[in-house]
Amino acid sequence: MTFEIPPSLGVRGNEKIAVDMMSRMWGKKGVFTCTIANTLTSTIPGVSEAGDTPELTLYTGPADAEYLVMGKVTCMKGIPINPGGIPTPATLTKAALELSKMPYFIINGGSKIIPNIPCIEVGGECGQPVNTGHTLSNVQQAFEYGKILGNQLADAYDYVVVSESCAGGTTTALAVLLAMGTIKENLVSSSSPKNPKQLKWDLVMEGFKAAGIQIGDLADDPLKAIECFGDPMMPVNLGIALGAAKRVPVIFGGGTQMAPIMAAAVKMDPSIIGNIMQGTTRWLLADPNSNMVKIMENISADIPMVYINMDYSKSPYEGLQAYEWGFIKEGVGCGGSSVAAVLTSAGAIDCDMLLDRVHDLYKKVMHFD
Amino acid sequence: MTFEIPPSLGVRGNEKIAVDMMSRMWGKKGVFTCTIANTLTSTIPGVSEAGDTPELTLYTGPADAEYLVMGKVTCMKGIPINPGGIPTPATLTKAALELSKMPYFIINGGSKIIPNIPCIEVGGECGQPVNTGHTLSNVQQAFEYGKILGNQLADAYDYVVVSESCAGGTTTALAVLLAMGTIKENLVSSSSPKNPKQLKWDLVMEGFKAAGIQIGDLADDPLKAIECFGDPMMPVNLGIALGAAKRVPVIFGGGTQMAPIMAAAVKMDPSIIGNIMQGTTRWLLADPNSNMVKIMENISADIPMVYINMDYSKSPYEGLQAYEWGFIKEGVGCGGSSVAAVLTSAGAIDCDMLLDRVHDLYKKVMHFD
Repeated sequence: MTFEIPPSLGVRGNEKIAVDMMSRMWGKKGVFTCTIANTLTSTIPGVSEAGDTPELTLYTGPADAEYLVMGKVTCMKGIPINPGGIPTPATLTKAALELSKMPYFIINGGSKIIPNIPCIEVGGECGQPVNTGHTLSNVQQAFEYGKILGNQLADAYDYVVVSESCAGGTTTALAVLLAMGTIKENLVSSSSPKNPKQLKWDLVMEGFKAAGIQIGDLADDPLKAIECFGDPMMPVNLGIALGAAKRVPVIFGGGTQMAPIMAAAVKMDPSIIGNIMQGTTRWLLADPNSNMVKIMENISADIPMVYINMDYSKSPYEGLQAYEWGFIKEGVGCGGSSVAAVLTSAGAIDCDMLLDRVHDLYKKVMHFD
Repeated sequence: MTFEIPPSLGVRGNEKIAVDMMSRMWGKKGVFTCTIANTLTSTIPGVSEAGDTPELTLYTGPADAEYLVMGKVTCMKGIPINPGGIPTPATLTKAALELSKMPYFIINGGSKIIPNIPCIEVGGECGQPVNTGHTLSNVQQAFEYGKILGNQLADAYDYVVVSESCAGGTTTALAVLLAMGTIKENLVSSSSPKNPKQLKWDLVMEGFKAAGIQIGDLADDPLKAIECFGDPMMPVNLGIALGAAKRVPVIFGGGTQMAPIMAAAVKMDPSIIGNIMQGTTRWLLADPNSNMVKIMENISADIPMVYINMDYSKSPYEGLQAYEWGFIKEGVGCGGSSVAAVLTSAGAIDCDMLLDRVHDLYKKVMHFD
């Protein structure tokens, strides 16, 4: 049987591997995980727009998790928005999960703000600012627990989606990618179309100075790179991916924040290539201010990027149209869960259905207070 | 289509409801949860045999959870045994989960000993001894988190199994059942054939005195009964059951320890009757030293007991033969997971297959150190 890529999905990179993996997930039952975490990096003014104010960025992950699980937010007023008032991409994630009825679990990678829902705990704590050069404690435990969880999920599901909601995470991603030498320049994304590239770079270099390392010094020690410069969603997601991908396909749901995890994973176990892919959005890959494709070329030519072809340009809501102008683009595994919804439903779920559901959810979200 | 009860299963109580529920779970995908917890009640000498010594009873739940998830135990040496050397029933649970490939999650209801695996946390803490008359803190949170989790699981699965591993739990069960007036005498089970009935009764009465209540006083306030006399697996399992059973069938996996939760659940929401059943073992229902059937008659005539027809009498292992002599009988959801394995596989899994797998697992367990 020839597998045809459905029109709701697009592929960048190695299409052969993408098609092989998608055909193995077609109509099969997957599980979606979203790891929430806090890094104090996001509270440095100007770094993150994943929250209305620097302080509120700490609420973004926990509030996203509450919204996915309960359909409402209790740890803060309203829902996470960026300073322009554009709401969290979790509406798309929720649409995908509702339509596909895919099982979903929230993992607390390490948060300062604890959501009011049951989470899977892995022993992580809130991360320190990236410029300290030593951001995480307990990396080994979170990593090991991730591996256990990845194995546990592979026991019961045909594939696994990992994802994240962690404000400030593109800056920590930049730092880890530079420490590993995966990239030498700032190619990471931002939830704002005005990506504060210089500020992120300066903070990362400050962290490198504090840690006494240079670009590429930690190429052979990904866990050390994560411990020095990462955020708490990284070690557990790395563990889940390595634990699961030996046995079942794994989708890295997200944008450039997931790149350091993919880079670390293939460094630690190259045999998983062929069983991992990125699941993201058209918006992320179209972003002129970041370069996911180039980052991925540096990690491996054989990790395909599969994206959901969502288009919000005709949406009646300005907060959704904004995705077309470069806001938000990714987060809360909205791309990965949407790709998974299409695959799990064997194409029965498409972009039009997702858009309708997003509109239903968006209408409700507008009235949160 | 007429549903025929497969020979691996047996029914006590309302067969019509049992058949209706089983036909709705036949070949469908369920999810298994096991809530581990500690109550200091188990450390009172003579109360619990779910552990080699009173102190070691605290390790039983966490070690069972590690065994289910990792196939090995790291929080203690060996695996949980009773003072006669008879190993935990978790080998049967693991056999059922492995054969059925059913998704399974460990919930930490509240433990003093924390297992070295990722668990779903609900804000619970280790319970105080039953004779204090105030055993639990944070009951409302654990209950609410349970409801959220129950709803979350009902989003994605066709049915839900709740279960427990909590040494000392038959004594707390006795206390809660008496406080609610469900029973007036000691009908609960024990992992030992020499059920220490008088000791349990005396401890419960001491607790009642400390709390200033008499049998039946808390008939209309199940959460208060659990707060005063329960153990930490109760509020979260109650919440899961109430959250899930409005939408999907729920199996209470376990013996008399699950009775207070069923009593509380139907008190708080009688509409779930018809969508809940007990999943247990032949051994538990055959126990001459407890009376599950009578307890259930007092809760509701319409909660059927479905049991797995396992027979260890021809097993080459004395530690398994002992089940036929009244040891262990239930725990770690071994009955519920086995019933679920038969249902989910539409009868493809039967007692013979379970027995073979238990023997494989048992051989490995004997060499743990």
